[in-house]
Amino acid sequence: MDNEVHKVVAIPDSFKGTLSAREVAGAMRRGVERAATTLDIHVDVSEIPFADGGEGTLEAVLAAWGTAAQACDATDSLGRPIRSHYGVSPDGKTGLIEAAQANGLAAVSDVPLRPREATTRGVGAMVRAALDQGVQEILLTAGGSATTDGGTGMLRELGMRFLDKNGNELPDGGGCLVELATIDVENVDPRAFDITWKIAADVTNPLTGPHGAAHVFGPQKGATPEDVEVLDAALANMARVAEAVGGQQTEGVPGLGAAGGIAALLHAFFRVELEPGWQMVSQALGAPETVGSADLVLTGEGRFDSQSIDGKVIYGVRQFTPPAVPLVVLAGQVGITSEDLERSGVTAAFSIARGPSTLEEIAPQTAELVEWNAYQIARFWLS
Amino acid sequence: MDNEVHKVVAIPDSFKGTLSAREVAGAMRRGVERAATTLDIHVDVSEIPFADGGEGTLEAVLAAWGTAAQACDATDSLGRPIRSHYGVSPDGKTGLIEAAQANGLAAVSDVPLRPREATTRGVGAMVRAALDQGVQEILLTAGGSATTDGGTGMLRELGMRFLDKNGNELPDGGGCLVELATIDVENVDPRAFDITWKIAADVTNPLTGPHGAAHVFGPQKGATPEDVEVLDAALANMARVAEAVGGQQTEGVPGLGAAGGIAALLHAFFRVELEPGWQMVSQALGAPETVGSADLVLTGEGRFDSQSIDGKVIYGVRQFTPPAVPLVVLAGQVGITSEDLERSGVTAAFSIARGPSTLEEIAPQTAELVEWNAYQIARFWLS
Repeated sequence: MDNEVHKVVAIPDSFKGTLSAREVAGAMRRGVERAATTLDIHVDVSEIPFADGGEGTLEAVLAAWGTAAQACDATDSLGRPIRSHYGVSPDGKTGLIEAAQANGLAAVSDVPLRPREATTRGVGAMVRAALDQGVQEILLTAGGSATTDGGTGMLRELGMRFLDKNGNELPDGGGCLVELATIDVENVDPRAFDITWKIAADVTNPLTGPHGAAHVFGPQKGATPEDVEVLDAALANMARVAEAVGGQQTEGVPGLGAAGGIAALLHAFFRVELEPGWQMVSQALGAPETVGSADLVLTGEGRFDSQSIDGKVIYGVRQFTPPAVPLVVLAGQVGITSEDLERSGVTAAFSIARGPSTLEEIAPQTAELVEWNAYQIARFWLS
Repeated sequence: MDNEVHKVVAIPDSFKGTLSAREVAGAMRRGVERAATTLDIHVDVSEIPFADGGEGTLEAVLAAWGTAAQACDATDSLGRPIRSHYGVSPDGKTGLIEAAQANGLAAVSDVPLRPREATTRGVGAMVRAALDQGVQEILLTAGGSATTDGGTGMLRELGMRFLDKNGNELPDGGGCLVELATIDVENVDPRAFDITWKIAADVTNPLTGPHGAAHVFGPQKGATPEDVEVLDAALANMARVAEAVGGQQTEGVPGLGAAGGIAALLHAFFRVELEPGWQMVSQALGAPETVGSADLVLTGEGRFDSQSIDGKVIYGVRQFTPPAVPLVVLAGQVGITSEDLERSGVTAAFSIARGPSTLEEIAPQTAELVEWNAYQIARFWLS
């Protein structure tokens, strides 16, 4: 084996609360390189910090892009000014926006939730800033939102107007969309029509109804049963009005129930692709190409269990890892059954624990433990 | 890979206090076979429960031999009757005796130690029983003894006589050997001269002097500083007398200080080989041949640390594992440094822990955890 170069890709998720995906990938690389050095074998290790469209996505993508985060003045879902960040790819063509930075639950954790009034205006401010930089494609991660406004706040920032039957503009928030009589797209920023919108949505819920945005996700955003009924009726009305003014049908489209319907009007009026978070992120990272030519793929996350194999980072990595290439998971906790492991297509999963130990003991050593276990895996694989 | 048969050898130590070597080997086999079955690959897994001459040696060897333990009436080091067990190989040629069953510290843990009087007579009873079964070779593990009698008690049972200057037989124990004036070998069982004695000794201490049996190991057998001086002088006198009556020189021979000098007079008068415990056991098990043709070797022990690489089970397994064959360790706790791992020749070492967990949580699940990790290793290796 000594003359070949063995290609290893380290493409982990973060270990939540402990190490970012970038730190995990770096530890994996160090472990693999150490094994290779001591065995006098050549390896080429690529680091791809990964994310599934949730927390950590912007950091992971910026690390891969090698670009700095762009700052922007925005507002949280209750309209309070915040400073948020988004990313632009090195070629300037792609903007990445984590919607939750503006409309997320975390940003309003200090005050009572107001589900009927919560707005995506802040997301719109980030979109506008990215458009001002000339991007031709917007990647929007939708998870973790506090809003159920059908994306109306975001679109107001791009010039869309939401009017009642008297032609008066409605206030912010999803609740008042029960009064929506027409949508004025006359003054919408033309760039919103020109670009491609890619929305990372990991749910398949429709916009309205018992499985819709208000019923399923409303309660976790503070909606009472009454709020849920109002918001569901509001989104249904919005969908009817959008269609009446020439928009595409939104009702019944899987995924438009994500993030309080944030993608519904984008879908109605613009060029939108909804895709799983891992898929959007992997494309942004160029991961399929790099992983596709690997000889060994290392991935990992804080807890690897039966949920990990449905649509999250490791599921995604498996999708573009060639079947014959071993895919090894390192995790703080391995809670998967062998049946699920076999179903997942993961080759093997090892805990980073070196023996009986508490979470408090392991957590501060996570980087060293990941490095050690990557070193073990690589020694075994290379020998 | 589908048409070859992949040869895997599971050759672990016990996980002390939790699982016997046989149970560990069985769990490893199940894990490997499950991986092979689900990948539709043929494997041939050999189980070799291993031991290093210490605790668990008889059980491991009997498991490999497939013979039942032989019961025998013997005595402990203070002369109290005990029922002890030894092994005989399937061909009847080899007897395995764990000396500590009779002369061990554990057998006299209920009473004050009496280092000057403690005797190896009980070991002699086991030897005689084995000789009565017609063995041509005795394997004797020496560790854990409570005795410092130079093996005189054992040899009394075989007919050797230890006389003072008046021709009176000395009492049992090492202390009175200061009075030894001559050794009478006239009535020694002739089979003791005919057979080969193999003694497992993991120390290189000489019989006497500052690094000898009394000085180094006496205190842990209850010897006061005064006892140590007496016992050291007694063993030195015994060595002189043995040589005077035609025995081989024992002073200065590395290893004869093991187990209170139990092998000293064997060496003086009979055909004796001293060897490391792992080596003696591995030969009894036929391990070098089986491991020598393996494609993957799995071993393990409760705690794998830097002590494991010096003369214990895993060290031994490495000695007869071909250099190109991966040797993987599964352990409850992996406490070794990467430098020591590289020095050890072990390919990789994994803890069976699946995440943060206490010893109390892990211990009852050890078999399942070993099986799970063997399954992971095999999946990775086979893919």
